[in-house]
Amino acid sequence: MVFHVEYERTVPARKPDGHAPAAPRYALGWNKPVSAIISDYFALQGEELNWSQERAFFDRARESFDHPFGPDSSEIMRAKDERGMTNAVVVAYWTDPVKHARWAAGSPLVAWLKEDARLTDTTGTWRETISVPYDRHETIYSENWYRIGIGQTDGSVIVSSAANGYFGAARDRIPLAAIDRLESPHGERAPQSKPVAGRGQRLLVTAPVNMVTLRSGQYWAIADAEQLGDYIENMRPRLLTGTDYLGEHKQETGTLSLLVLANLDDDGTERRESCVVAHFLSLAHLEAWSAAHKTHLDIYRHAIAMNRKYKEQRQFVSWHELFVLQTATFEYVNCHPDTGLLPYFESVVCI
Amino acid sequence: MVFHVEYERTVPARKPDGHAPAAPRYALGWNKPVSAIISDYFALQGEELNWSQERAFFDRARESFDHPFGPDSSEIMRAKDERGMTNAVVVAYWTDPVKHARWAAGSPLVAWLKEDARLTDTTGTWRETISVPYDRHETIYSENWYRIGIGQTDGSVIVSSAANGYFGAARDRIPLAAIDRLESPHGERAPQSKPVAGRGQRLLVTAPVNMVTLRSGQYWAIADAEQLGDYIENMRPRLLTGTDYLGEHKQETGTLSLLVLANLDDDGTERRESCVVAHFLSLAHLEAWSAAHKTHLDIYRHAIAMNRKYKEQRQFVSWHELFVLQTATFEYVNCHPDTGLLPYFESVVCI
Repeated sequence: MVFHVEYERTVPARKPDGHAPAAPRYALGWNKPVSAIISDYFALQGEELNWSQERAFFDRARESFDHPFGPDSSEIMRAKDERGMTNAVVVAYWTDPVKHARWAAGSPLVAWLKEDARLTDTTGTWRETISVPYDRHETIYSENWYRIGIGQTDGSVIVSSAANGYFGAARDRIPLAAIDRLESPHGERAPQSKPVAGRGQRLLVTAPVNMVTLRSGQYWAIADAEQLGDYIENMRPRLLTGTDYLGEHKQETGTLSLLVLANLDDDGTERRESCVVAHFLSLAHLEAWSAAHKTHLDIYRHAIAMNRKYKEQRQFVSWHELFVLQTATFEYVNCHPDTGLLPYFESVVCI
Repeated sequence: MVFHVEYERTVPARKPDGHAPAAPRYALGWNKPVSAIISDYFALQGEELNWSQERAFFDRARESFDHPFGPDSSEIMRAKDERGMTNAVVVAYWTDPVKHARWAAGSPLVAWLKEDARLTDTTGTWRETISVPYDRHETIYSENWYRIGIGQTDGSVIVSSAANGYFGAARDRIPLAAIDRLESPHGERAPQSKPVAGRGQRLLVTAPVNMVTLRSGQYWAIADAEQLGDYIENMRPRLLTGTDYLGEHKQETGTLSLLVLANLDDDGTERRESCVVAHFLSLAHLEAWSAAHKTHLDIYRHAIAMNRKYKEQRQFVSWHELFVLQTATFEYVNCHPDTGLLPYFESVVCI
């Protein structure tokens, strides 16, 4: 079996009549029922993190994950945020919310985050836990031989997807979108929260219903000289132009936060593997940029052209996993006030 | 259409082979897709609430609900809790999480709850928001002519249900239970939290995944003398013995909190309509009591006997709505420390 959820549509599909995808694409399934998908992000934030600080944090996470209820998989990454601060990020994946809760209840990593000492560290820490029912997610992979993100969870399998190659395909791949428009309660524009100090505070922020968390990645580790050259000269600049545009036009694009992360090896060196992790006010915001803005069309068209050129010899992978949140509470401890969702939604100060 | 979600079973149904229900029973459906069900409980808690205090609170709620994004329905109720405190309770229902969020964002009731002044009132206030995907709920009604709870939401319809009359039927009616055992991360026994003051504090508590919230009700307003007599002499004592047992054996039964509430008329007088609202650590805990304990079997057998005796002339209704939570955060402001989930799960103190 490949588990999937399908609703009888009351919201029309975006797929044009008679559309046939130009190139094969893949999505993720599981060979067992999946009632929820959890990606739990933990980070250390600092002006200039050195490797020994990062390594201590990553080691703490790794030791905590080595547990019967630990995650199916985890990854370590690093990003500079828009304030120029370094964020050392760990993401861990589960497909069982009970196992995840059992892990969290006894986790030294979570206990460490809760300690009062975090409020006076030279570094900040944050945790963004994304936990959605199966019907609030979708994935796509340009190739079927690369596993990352929730694609490394137990029982996951790559399946062909016909819902690709047209604008609105991501929405069509989200099961719940068949019966729900997944609108934001905030409409077109994100609100602005009352300014917070951030530093020295433990802040909880409730994410609004239908907020979208996107992890969109690139993998070029096995690319030969020609495809590597294309990535460095043509693809990467387009990707950076696109993410820069989103970061610089947050209000119009509904972008709430955005990090460009490099996956790391165990010794902290950057792998030839990266991703963008971003929160959007709604799926419609992300779609508007994807379908109509030059910076995305430049990425999209180049990706299509290269797939057509190299076909089965394509050695570059692009992929994403997307979650439409129902209820989520994020935690920011001793972080700068532009971290994550802090600029938009009222936070609760905890003691 | 009557919207419903069904999964291909990987967890066996509890229904015995060839079982045919002895009496007709009903469940709730909707004539439109429902992606989430929300019951939002607000309460005022005080040593001896007088009607002018209760009325002011109920009026505040009612005015706040009179809004384009307000609830489909709401009810006012009153209960003494185990500390002998009076809780004036308002419950409001939505089947659209976006509408609910839009209401909450602009609601004077929610804003009032957030005011610092609540910390020094002579009364406490609390809010327990239950928001679950459709596949985490089930309902049952003994008759098809009485509407209450989520049965008063827009587009709701009463449908016949064959999943009744055997132990485990409630689980069989929860769509997600077909693929998920809905276990508690805490196993058999609820944990004990570090004691909190409660009074003078604003406390947030995260409910554990798969916690069950049950609202189980009784309606005897139109019962004739004979059936009213039966209710008062035979049914109500059994119900109270059952709820007393649960309240006095919380650890063994997985009962976390339990209120026996009277529905109220607009002038504060008790209607001939009541309910129990209770949180259980897991569905298995509630099932163990239902299937095996004398105090429940006494209720169950008497209900069946009276249904057989009066058939279509039955003028007493019993019903329940049950939710299996995925993620929820409850708020207790200036309440006594045994309120709701406070005794079990660590709370966060907010300023």
